[in-house]
Amino acid sequence: MPQTPHLEKHFTASATIRDIVIGMADGLTVPFALAAGLSGAIDSSRVVITAGLAEIAAGSIAMGLGGYLAARTDAEHYAAELAREKRETIEIPEEETREVVELFEQYGVPHESATEAAHALRQDRKRWVDFMMRFELGLEPPDPKRARVSALTIGLSYIAGGLVPLTPYFFTRTPATGLLVSIAVTLLALLVFGYVKGTFTVRRPLRSAWQTAVVGGLAAAAAFAIAKFIA
Amino acid sequence: MPQTPHLEKHFTASATIRDIVIGMADGLTVPFALAAGLSGAIDSSRVVITAGLAEIAAGSIAMGLGGYLAARTDAEHYAAELAREKRETIEIPEEETREVVELFEQYGVPHESATEAAHALRQDRKRWVDFMMRFELGLEPPDPKRARVSALTIGLSYIAGGLVPLTPYFFTRTPATGLLVSIAVTLLALLVFGYVKGTFTVRRPLRSAWQTAVVGGLAAAAAFAIAKFIA
Repeated sequence: MPQTPHLEKHFTASATIRDIVIGMADGLTVPFALAAGLSGAIDSSRVVITAGLAEIAAGSIAMGLGGYLAARTDAEHYAAELAREKRETIEIPEEETREVVELFEQYGVPHESATEAAHALRQDRKRWVDFMMRFELGLEPPDPKRARVSALTIGLSYIAGGLVPLTPYFFTRTPATGLLVSIAVTLLALLVFGYVKGTFTVRRPLRSAWQTAVVGGLAAAAAFAIAKFIA
Repeated sequence: MPQTPHLEKHFTASATIRDIVIGMADGLTVPFALAAGLSGAIDSSRVVITAGLAEIAAGSIAMGLGGYLAARTDAEHYAAELAREKRETIEIPEEETREVVELFEQYGVPHESATEAAHALRQDRKRWVDFMMRFELGLEPPDPKRARVSALTIGLSYIAGGLVPLTPYFFTRTPATGLLVSIAVTLLALLVFGYVKGTFTVRRPLRSAWQTAVVGGLAAAAAFAIAKFIA
């Protein structure tokens, strides 16, 4: 993958963009597929719309509230580990120092400079604990406001995504016509969404565009086939 | 949160357990809520079952394939960053060494031992690059087989979860009776699932149990209210 190494920053998608992607990816896909499936099996736009909106309500709450609880769990996990590391630097400082020395030695730092670095770390308990959290456990301090913002972002993105494939059924006479318009509109939306998402992650937007559309198409095809089979 | 610090390992849920939790949490919740919503609005078990199975197909593919692509994106992101770090240790080794020194100095390691440690790291390029990946960028090497296993685990967990709330509608005469049995069975399943999930994360299984049940209940109530309102 060609890159321009020095102009470019090491990229990590912001948490908000990640939440929008999470919510919208599923919001565009699942209600689309459900509506497509039902419109092949049941000849009533009202049923398709009812099921679609019920799904959007259920999915946005499940994902949003799920995101909220997951973020809170992360924050609590961090707090618990932080308290434990703090306690350990007080109760068993020698053992904790040895862990730092070993961590450095794993990467070829000779025992003496590893020991020196570890003893320098011990001078400031807060920094020592921060170091253990980040480098021994690989945990980053969570943003306390994340949980609520994350929940809302994921939930609203799911709703926004889900209304795209559903809207055509409001304005067309039969589910069959609705389905055709919905397929066109949603595939376009999936391509655009996948393209934008791709610029944020591995910088291969075109591949991301068609992959996202394929996932949506496959989900819709599977839902359609199963509904048709039952009906 | 009281803990027994020394018997207990720092816990991180295995990737497989995380995937099962991701798939099953949504699988138990969304098809449950959708079926509940429809059964309040449309008096046909066949419609409820058709919509439910279509949703399970759509949701499992969206989540499973979504998980597959996400895991692959992670792996590619890691590979790209690894290649870049490797190139930088060859092209601008002094700058990279300075980054390591600064990283240590942030945590109070004095300049001299930080420089010594950084120069020790430089002796072995592989370890040096590994060190940068983990400690500068905070990236762990991904398991190359993860993507496919992750997709299957999430998708199958979604299906397994989704069949729980839907099964009662197969065996009851009216959607209303199906709904009552489905609520009982699914709330029980959510409580058990939440409890087990809770033992893996913050070790507060009871709170996790009722929270998981509340998310499912709220999603179902919202879907029910919206469907009822439209119909």
